[in-house]
Amino acid sequence: MKNPFFKKKNNIKINDILQCLNLQKEKKNFIVEDIKDLEIASKNDISFFHSVKYIKSLNKTKSKLIITSKKFSKLIPKNIKVIMVSNILLSTAKITSLFYPNAINDNFDSKLNKVEKDKFKNLKIGENVLFGKNVKIGKNCSVGHNTIIESNVRIGDDCIIGCNVIIKNTIIGKSTSILDGAIIGKKGFGFFPNKDGNIKYPHIGGVIIGNNVEIGCNNTIDRGSLSNTVIGDGTFLDNQVHIAHNVKIGKNCIITGQVGFAGSASIGNNVSIGGQAGISGHLKIGDNVQIGGGSGVIKNIASNKKVMGYPAKDIRNFLKDNRRDD
Amino acid sequence: MKNPFFKKKNNIKINDILQCLNLQKEKKNFIVEDIKDLEIASKNDISFFHSVKYIKSLNKTKSKLIITSKKFSKLIPKNIKVIMVSNILLSTAKITSLFYPNAINDNFDSKLNKVEKDKFKNLKIGENVLFGKNVKIGKNCSVGHNTIIESNVRIGDDCIIGCNVIIKNTIIGKSTSILDGAIIGKKGFGFFPNKDGNIKYPHIGGVIIGNNVEIGCNNTIDRGSLSNTVIGDGTFLDNQVHIAHNVKIGKNCIITGQVGFAGSASIGNNVSIGGQAGISGHLKIGDNVQIGGGSGVIKNIASNKKVMGYPAKDIRNFLKDNRRDD
Amino acid sequence: MKNPFFKKKNNIKINDILQCLNLQKEKKNFIVEDIKDLEIASKNDISFFHSVKYIKSLNKTKSKLIITSKKFSKLIPKNIKVIMVSNILLSTAKITSLFYPNAINDNFDSKLNKVEKDKFKNLKIGENVLFGKNVKIGKNCSVGHNTIIESNVRIGDDCIIGCNVIIKNTIIGKSTSILDGAIIGKKGFGFFPNKDGNIKYPHIGGVIIGNNVEIGCNNTIDRGSLSNTVIGDGTFLDNQVHIAHNVKIGKNCIITGQVGFAGSASIGNNVSIGGQAGISGHLKIGDNVQIGGGSGVIKNIASNKKVMGYPAKDIRNFLKDNRRDD
Repeated sequence: MKNPFFKKKNNIKINDILQCLNLQKEKKNFIVEDIKDLEIASKNDISFFHSVKYIKSLNKTKSKLIITSKKFSKLIPKNIKVIMVSNILLSTAKITSLFYPNAINDNFDSKLNKVEKDKFKNLKIGENVLFGKNVKIGKNCSVGHNTIIESNVRIGDDCIIGCNVIIKNTIIGKSTSILDGAIIGKKGFGFFPNKDGNIKYPHIGGVIIGNNVEIGCNNTIDRGSLSNTVIGDGTFLDNQVHIAHNVKIGKNCIITGQVGFAGSASIGNNVSIGGQAGISGHLKIGDNVQIGGGSGVIKNIASNKKVMGYPAKDIRNFLKDNRRDD
Repeated sequence: MKNPFFKKKNNIKINDILQCLNLQKEKKNFIVEDIKDLEIASKNDISFFHSVKYIKSLNKTKSKLIITSKKFSKLIPKNIKVIMVSNILLSTAKITSLFYPNAINDNFDSKLNKVEKDKFKNLKIGENVLFGKNVKIGKNCSVGHNTIIESNVRIGDDCIIGCNVIIKNTIIGKSTSILDGAIIGKKGFGFFPNKDGNIKYPHIGGVIIGNNVEIGCNNTIDRGSLSNTVIGDGTFLDNQVHIAHNVKIGKNCIITGQVGFAGSASIGNNVSIGGQAGISGHLKIGDNVQIGGGSGVIKNIASNKKVMGYPAKDIRNFLKDNRRDD
Repeated sequence: MKNPFFKKKNNIKINDILQCLNLQKEKKNFIVEDIKDLEIASKNDISFFHSVKYIKSLNKTKSKLIITSKKFSKLIPKNIKVIMVSNILLSTAKITSLFYPNAINDNFDSKLNKVEKDKFKNLKIGENVLFGKNVKIGKNCSVGHNTIIESNVRIGDDCIIGCNVIIKNTIIGKSTSILDGAIIGKKGFGFFPNKDGNIKYPHIGGVIIGNNVEIGCNNTIDRGSLSNTVIGDGTFLDNQVHIAHNVKIGKNCIITGQVGFAGSASIGNNVSIGGQAGISGHLKIGDNVQIGGGSGVIKNIASNKKVMGYPAKDIRNFLKDNRRDD
């Protein structure tokens, strides 16, 4: 599938990649199509393996060209060509930038189109609204004052977009509301710490928001790095929620004010999270989980659990531990 | 008292209400004036009773028409007509929407007036400011760049409104400052969770902000559902504070950065709350209470207490429990 | 050094100061140059001493005129003239306002200049951008739509300023990014609580942001009161971070989403802070410290420590105390 958010540079060859990593060129040069993670890579894509956590994906991947380090090289199936590097993620970032040179920074969208109301069906539009190129908006939508919708954003029917909103690199379903001041689709907080200047990595993913969703005021929802940030159908987010890159939130979740999700957290369906709770990065929260307000979740949570506390634990234990009369 | 924020539909009759709830119509049709909670309802208003917590209000109410469920029907005084339903709050929401059809969503205010500076006395006004219809602003105020003040908002004398501010459904006193990026008066985060699509309920209350108040940058203050959200005289809020629907904050309170209040919390006078503390919904905090930074308050707090912790407890106990040297 | 942010009133004399404090005038009137804290005051500046914590600074100060109270008067070196008051900080605030009458409030900048793109070298600029007087911007910068850069702000080369940003009273280095919706340089949350109306104190400091810094979306960074708020080179801040007045953050720090710093906190170099953590006021955090997400830091932390918890403690103890299986 073509990346709907960022323009890929074509005709990248294996020797371009080797050169970018300061490695020796090969005799047989060939085209590499794209860079993708193991799960979705096709046979002409390059991918990467940096943790035994992903061994299952490695054994199923269609990629025939993988970046890894000496430590993991024995695990790579024989029929896959290996590029050996010392810092896998840094090398992956460099190659991603080679394919997607525009995905590092978030320069504002200067390719504006005059908003031609006639192009859209029954669109109610405020003052000072700015649209980029190729914006698609469904029927019966409204877009409030001072809102910026950058190039290639797609919005479904019956959506309400508030005032002072900024949306970029995002696809939104039907009957969804984006409230005032929300900022959606900027690059995530991703870089390799480096004393001579942090090295930012590109974010070529976008934000996918479902149907019947509500995104609260002043929310910040970052786009994904290699995959997308996803908000499922029927999920409601209150004000001042922060969602980092690659987070996946399921359907019909209720996320109360000032909740924060660190990068790559994965949340099931019908999850409710109380105000100011925080979810650490890379965690997996099951379906129907209830997380009390103020909780700090630092471990995976199985489906149907109720937790509270910092660190979050079974809510009965939290209440028991704090039963003392004071 | 007439609702100053939302236009009420007149000539609603009992049979309109019964029809809206899918109940059988009555022979004797009559006009119902408005929907209000028990405390403030007049004799021609409909009200609702959904918890024994409100038994005192029930016994004092002037309403002669009350929505409740079978479980509570015996508690209703004999001289009050009862409409029996299975889900009291959902039915109340439906009837509220019948009276106030515009209070469900927050479509941006498209009924703009050109800002006629001469209409206002000594008003200093920035660029790109948008005013709705019937905005009232007192003497010697300033309104910063890009700010949106929607229809019917009233602001007293000597107020300073910053840049990029959005104000709707709000009444502000004198000598109050609203700092940059604050969003005031949008509907609260209120709905009935429903797997086939959450059912939003209308918010017909507004936001009432007193005199000499300061509202910090990027604050979000939601309007009330049936009652108002209230910020008392002399109260100061720091940046990134979130205030949910129906919260009442007293006078001379000091609310530090990133504090969050869940819906219907009630805070006394002279209360100080440290940064990032959270107050659960429907709690009652007394006067002169001091709440330490980072606290999670999940119980009522009597006047003059000092608390800290998550859950918040007497600050001496919090410090004692954490005295260990580490 | 001249204050680069606020215009000082000249020719303030000792009797103006005494009058402002309702004290008796002196026979020998003389000019007082400025008001500064003990560390940086010159011999013609007035300063103040309000806590034994600052006894070292007192013994080294060049100031020859100090405000203090009876309690501390014996500590003041003999060659320094003393102004005795009952409330030192309130008196200091009054005198600061005498010198800097424009530093109390944050009226929007109405002294706009038309943005003359030719004045700047290779500046990429969005729609509806507003510049105050005397804005300086280096080479190859971009400034996004709807952004407001107030008078006297200075920005170095190669900076990226996003959309809907507000910057005032700030100096920014080179190659720094300010992301969408950030609000930088407004006065801090500073006042003397008073039941008849809080008394705000002036903020004559600014915000100094280094090179290669990234400031996240919807951040709020307040300017200093007497000193500056400082963000060191190479430091990255994620979204929704709140930084109060006078905070100093060192170099190469990583501050994750929704972190909050209370006033005058001082953070070393190479410090990483997890999401939603809070740092209390006036604390000193050393170099290379790691603070876990959600922590509430209420004590100083020595260099190279790893802490977590509320209150924050050594991370090994935090994990040990919470090892229980639940």
